Amino acid sequence: MKNIKLTLEYDGTKFNGWQKQAEQRTVEGELEKAIRRTTGEEIKLIASGRTDRGVHAYGQVANFLTDSTIPGNRFVYAINDRLPDDISVKLSEEVNRGFHSRFSAHRKTYRYVILNEDIRSPIYRNHAYQVKHELDFKSMKKAIHHFVGRQDYSSFVTYRSNKEKNIRTVYDTRLEKKGNFIEFEIEGNGFLHNMVRIIAGTLVEIGHGRRSPESIPELIKYKDRNKAGHTAPAEGLYLLKVFY
Amino acid sequence: MKNIKLTLEYDGTKFNGWQKQAEQRTVEGELEKAIRRTTGEEIKLIASGRTDRGVHAYGQVANFLTDSTIPGNRFVYAINDRLPDDISVKLSEEVNRGFHSRFSAHRKTYRYVILNEDIRSPIYRNHAYQVKHELDFKSMKKAIHHFVGRQDYSSFVTYRSNKEKNIRTVYDTRLEKKGNFIEFEIEGNGFLHNMVRIIAGTLVEIGHGRRSPESIPELIKYKDRNKAGHTAPAEGLYLLKVFY
Repeated sequence: MKNIKLTLEYDGTKFNGWQKQAEQRTVEGELEKAIRRTTGEEIKLIASGRTDRGVHAYGQVANFLTDSTIPGNRFVYAINDRLPDDISVKLSEEVNRGFHSRFSAHRKTYRYVILNEDIRSPIYRNHAYQVKHELDFKSMKKAIHHFVGRQDYSSFVTYRSNKEKNIRTVYDTRLEKKGNFIEFEIEGNGFLHNMVRIIAGTLVEIGHGRRSPESIPELIKYKDRNKAGHTAPAEGLYLLKVFY
Repeated sequence: MKNIKLTLEYDGTKFNGWQKQAEQRTVEGELEKAIRRTTGEEIKLIASGRTDRGVHAYGQVANFLTDSTIPGNRFVYAINDRLPDDISVKLSEEVNRGFHSRFSAHRKTYRYVILNEDIRSPIYRNHAYQVKHELDFKSMKKAIHHFVGRQDYSSFVTYRSNKEKNIRTVYDTRLEKKGNFIEFEIEGNGFLHNMVRIIAGTLVEIGHGRRSPESIPELIKYKDRNKAGHTAPAEGLYLLKVFY
């Protein structure tokens, strides 16, 4: 029995998120179908984590166990032939039996793309969060380093559970301006539900002068979702890379 | 009577090109419908030129005559409210009666986007021409200056008419590498049908070592479409700007 690791790109626009659901088009559902047609087996996919409806990925990772004789590095072609055009396996490899896409993950990087333009953009409508009124890039840049460190991110989670600890470590944050686009990247050991989107929404509010960069440490201390900014929309979010 | 100039962005993916056709979804058709709902008049749109099915625009220009009392710079909002999400008016302005989007145009810029990646990319499937095997950027860069000047571009036109002269002036060409993307830009006083796409296809063949950069002057002299490269697909092409 082989353990196959897949690195996946997908355009989240027409998926109802990652997780398989009856009568919904999901990334997991389409992938399992394609793998079943490839190997003839009922397989169970394990992903590094779910992505929500509309969220994109350049480097999602999933693995599955199979008795197929197809060599690990050939699954990329066999599965792609059976996938719709909005999902693609970019890399396939055989890994040791202990590899688990979720539990073995050490680190993840997300990118959030903001388009700062007053009139709506048809070309980027599903691939960026379009924001009107000029954003103050310098203020946003000042704010991002406050999100680095081992901290309780309870102010930046949609479904807060009292049982669950909301402490995560963020290793790095980056902000770059490319023409009318602002790209935010965040790397951490794990992310709470909607954490990147709430941080992105909060950064946009800083860019609009409705919050100060200096208010972030206090906002983190509050551990109160209601004190943070809005949840920026799914279409700007990309799961870039999972590190093992 | 006012003459209104519109600057338009659209995602060409779901349009059957610019030109209005019965029972086809076209950019012109959708725009005329939205303007009719805005002004209550039957108007006739004049564009700087047609774009083919699947071709995108950041800066297409069109104008129309109207008796509407809406101020020129307000049409952008009025029309956008009535447009589908894959077209947008980015700018509207009143211009003098003599302005004609096609005849008054002096210069146009097109961009052609190539994604050089072996495994297909779902995210860019409708917005770039994906090409496998590494392209030799330096060779492509050497080739592009041969496309500058006042020349007969008969080797780079799909429908060659004997009546029509195929002489055009290209003012500038640019080629830039951005990660796995190669962006080609070309500015000229006018373009023949599929000219940019055939030049892009020829550049890709140079990048793959199947032609030399030095072969271009001879290829232009042939005035024979069959000697040039393939027509690169519509999804990589963007009408960037029209100059008046």
